[in-house]
Amino acid sequence: MSDEVAVTSLDDLRWNADGLIPVVAQDESNGDVLMMAWMNREALERTVEEGRMVYWSRSRSKLWRKGDTSGHTQTWSELRVDCDADVLLAKVHQEGAACATGNRSCFYRELPGSSDHEDLLPTPS
Amino acid sequence: MSDEVAVTSLDDLRWNADGLIPVVAQDESNGDVLMMAWMNREALERTVEEGRMVYWSRSRSKLWRKGDTSGHTQTWSELRVDCDADVLLAKVHQEGAACATGNRSCFYRELPGSSDHEDLLPTPS
Repeated sequence: MSDEVAVTSLDDLRWNADGLIPVVAQDESNGDVLMMAWMNREALERTVEEGRMVYWSRSRSKLWRKGDTSGHTQTWSELRVDCDADVLLAKVHQEGAACATGNRSCFYRELPGSSDHEDLLPTPS
Repeated sequence: MSDEVAVTSLDDLRWNADGLIPVVAQDESNGDVLMMAWMNREALERTVEEGRMVYWSRSRSKLWRKGDTSGHTQTWSELRVDCDADVLLAKVHQEGAACATGNRSCFYRELPGSSDHEDLLPTPS
């Protein structure tokens, strides 16, 4: 058994070198994993405060209040933290599609070749 | 709508600067999110090939064939990739506990204070 990392405040979270933590968003209605994105401390504070998921957009380097543009908001019902305090899990009510492609989940496709366990692998030489 | 990143081989995955990709493991039996860990390319190749989850341990800097020590193996039934090809989702059969603490899922605790939306936030000045 390993010990858990105690978390009594946001300071105890193990933010990465860029000050970010990955967050898995799960559909509270059916358990589907919708997406994974990142939060910095301000994003998490706003998420806790507003009851809506606010991420940090790494590509745009700014807060990303999910759904402000698309209307596809996420309101959370549970925020969980993992044993070593470096990943968060949010159970959310997803309005519309989580994915910008229009799919409800970002994980709408299988890794090509994974179903037959070989197409993706290098050809043996 | 955004375009998806096409994935026809492992080269198309968007490995991070350290050559890693985050992987969410989900219990195929009940949809619980069990853990998030990282894979490098070799770990993913072995995962695809062996049908068992093989991660990259960032703390030990070596391949981590889940369950070799604990017996708590993960065999996957589906490997999925997200729209922008930088996160994987594995649906797995979990033997025993996914978490080294002995809990079935690593997300066994709520983020403290999140249920009342305020304990974690800085006190207003």
